Amino acid sequence: MKTLWTERYAQRTQRMHSSAVRELLKLTEQPDLISFAGGLPAPEVFPVKEFEAASQKILRDYGPQALQYSTTEGYRPLREMIARHTARYGIVVGPENILITSGSQQALDLIGKILINPGDHVLVEKPTYLGALQAWNSYQTEYVSVSIDNDGLKTDELEPELRCGPKFIYTLPNFHNPAGVTLSLQRRHELIQQADHYGVPIIEDDPYGQLRYEGEHLPSLVELDSRFRSKNDGAPYTGNVIYLSTFSKTLAPGLRLGWVIAPAEVISKLVQAKQGADLHTSSFTQMVAYEVARGGFIDRHVKLIRAVYRERRDAMLDALKAYFPDDVAWTKPQGGLFLWVIVPAHLSAAEILKEAIKQKVAFVPGSAFYADGSGQNTMRLNFSNATPEKITEGIRRLGNVLKLFVKEHAHSA
Amino acid sequence: MKTLWTERYAQRTQRMHSSAVRELLKLTEQPDLISFAGGLPAPEVFPVKEFEAASQKILRDYGPQALQYSTTEGYRPLREMIARHTARYGIVVGPENILITSGSQQALDLIGKILINPGDHVLVEKPTYLGALQAWNSYQTEYVSVSIDNDGLKTDELEPELRCGPKFIYTLPNFHNPAGVTLSLQRRHELIQQADHYGVPIIEDDPYGQLRYEGEHLPSLVELDSRFRSKNDGAPYTGNVIYLSTFSKTLAPGLRLGWVIAPAEVISKLVQAKQGADLHTSSFTQMVAYEVARGGFIDRHVKLIRAVYRERRDAMLDALKAYFPDDVAWTKPQGGLFLWVIVPAHLSAAEILKEAIKQKVAFVPGSAFYADGSGQNTMRLNFSNATPEKITEGIRRLGNVLKLFVKEHAHSA
Repeated sequence: MKTLWTERYAQRTQRMHSSAVRELLKLTEQPDLISFAGGLPAPEVFPVKEFEAASQKILRDYGPQALQYSTTEGYRPLREMIARHTARYGIVVGPENILITSGSQQALDLIGKILINPGDHVLVEKPTYLGALQAWNSYQTEYVSVSIDNDGLKTDELEPELRCGPKFIYTLPNFHNPAGVTLSLQRRHELIQQADHYGVPIIEDDPYGQLRYEGEHLPSLVELDSRFRSKNDGAPYTGNVIYLSTFSKTLAPGLRLGWVIAPAEVISKLVQAKQGADLHTSSFTQMVAYEVARGGFIDRHVKLIRAVYRERRDAMLDALKAYFPDDVAWTKPQGGLFLWVIVPAHLSAAEILKEAIKQKVAFVPGSAFYADGSGQNTMRLNFSNATPEKITEGIRRLGNVLKLFVKEHAHSA
Repeated sequence: MKTLWTERYAQRTQRMHSSAVRELLKLTEQPDLISFAGGLPAPEVFPVKEFEAASQKILRDYGPQALQYSTTEGYRPLREMIARHTARYGIVVGPENILITSGSQQALDLIGKILINPGDHVLVEKPTYLGALQAWNSYQTEYVSVSIDNDGLKTDELEPELRCGPKFIYTLPNFHNPAGVTLSLQRRHELIQQADHYGVPIIEDDPYGQLRYEGEHLPSLVELDSRFRSKNDGAPYTGNVIYLSTFSKTLAPGLRLGWVIAPAEVISKLVQAKQGADLHTSSFTQMVAYEVARGGFIDRHVKLIRAVYRERRDAMLDALKAYFPDDVAWTKPQGGLFLWVIVPAHLSAAEILKEAIKQKVAFVPGSAFYADGSGQNTMRLNFSNATPEKITEGIRRLGNVLKLFVKEHAHSA
């Protein structure tokens, strides 16, 4: 009996980073700890009763279909509902432009599978969504990063990176995860034009678009790209943007239901990739989600979610103002689930977290969201999961920790 | 406005074969056609009432948890149930040895993600499961194939291929898909020893193990490997086999629930890969499946499935004997969902299929299951989905088509 392959296993596996968020979540499961670390929706707003009624109806009326294998593309009535919803914004899409995925995370993985060859470069924001990096690291991706500010991706810094031939641009235009900022209308136009100029596709990740708490809705990149190319012939979308969204924030994340909108030939490649990845997304959850969402329920329900999250965002902004020391800055998100904190450059968010956990409060150090590992002095705070009271108390605790660090450093400086 | 990237898209995407089975399924959706092409379980045996009761109980008692994000590893009570079930066979496994996947198909994809680098060789059976080839083609895998006969993988032909250093061996020991054969006990021992000798891991794909209609249960490879290495210290499994199974054939495929059993360090790598692939499998379907399966229900239910499928297998074997021409051979599976037909070497199963569809009967041409594209004169027949009456009628139709081809060829020869 020889040496087991598992003993030399680490060398044989591909590069794959551990998830800082996931490891942290394990540390923060103490009941008296107030965690701003996760990205969990508020369970109080899950439409549990509606899911109960829908599950019963689907199993009673369509039991064998709901429990049987189904097509890789997804449940057709659900795709038609998404197409109707998308058409409200003037984008012509049919079911052939839509793929149902096992959460938006799967869409990121499938995009990597069909587009990234080992060593390819992908253009990401600085910071960007950790889950996208996790999906694409397994395809041996290299990254180029472009900074963001309060108006989102700095489009005036795009050109030199686009000239290096990235495979695609990945952006979160609405209520950015982790930074909480929103791409301005002016920059949306610039991004569309520059991507077209260099022939580089855009992946538009929009999990939070429906969750706006103030300000006016801005057109999505897929909408602007569709207008930019419009021949007014009513033909389905064949542009430069692959758009991702999800039911995780508007219905429930535990279903694992997302979708992709893209030109039909891209969907067809993604369908092939999904066949190999998980055959199809659960027939049962797709049918139940459709039953819950249809007839306008989802639009009414989103209003409730907005009211609850707006109150929590405001509670966090008020507490930050009251309890955080002067030389700490933060973003003021118009929607979504997160805001972004920047501490003085000489401080380390990872060190601050260690002390914070002792004081029973947690967050995610921002460097996890940088493809190049920078951002040591940044932190992501989630405001959707905790009640306003807990948010106020948690920010008070975190403020005390920060004051200690800022003061100590002033002392030793 | 420049040429769209989608117009030169085909050149930019990685090699990815279309699914012959899926394309065929589209052709065979006419209601009067009898299809032996799919791999669908019989919807009549789905425990719909039990799912209705379980969904209601889970949402009533654990609604917010069932709809919230959960851990990548999977629902702990479900993993503990699988661990208890596995322990019956003398394999020591804890929840740390088990990962819940979105169907067994996802397990195949995740294994590709952590083990295959572009250009790596994988050792597969000839023929092998199409879904595995689909999963691994996207990782730019090369294949080496070893033939099978009525006793499964020909272990006496393994050595030269193992000496070429394949990344792993992929085998379906029980009621092989597509061939319907079962690996003999003698060969199981030989496979374990040779894999150990060359330090090559084994992927044991066992979706049908519970569906045996005659003969005695044979120990799984993971069980034999565990015994082979046993130090009798009661420590969890740390061997050479990654074992895959699923609830698709014993409860319902539309849930998309499978699992992997492996050494803890392999599970930990698969968990990282799954984080990037879909974060986790639906909390709701995992909890509902656990609620349905627990308390011995799944064992009782499997007995019903066995009785129904045994009758269908027998109906197909009887009809083959009655209606198929003399120079056509087939396997006699002791379990599972499929049998394998070999027509004279000069005939093409793809040509036969075209005529068969005209006569309102369908199957899958066997070449789809060969990594090297051979097997032109083979066909896979599914016997789980159609009723015995339809099976008899379908085989009569297919027999007539085959007689025509055999006769025509004798004429022209």
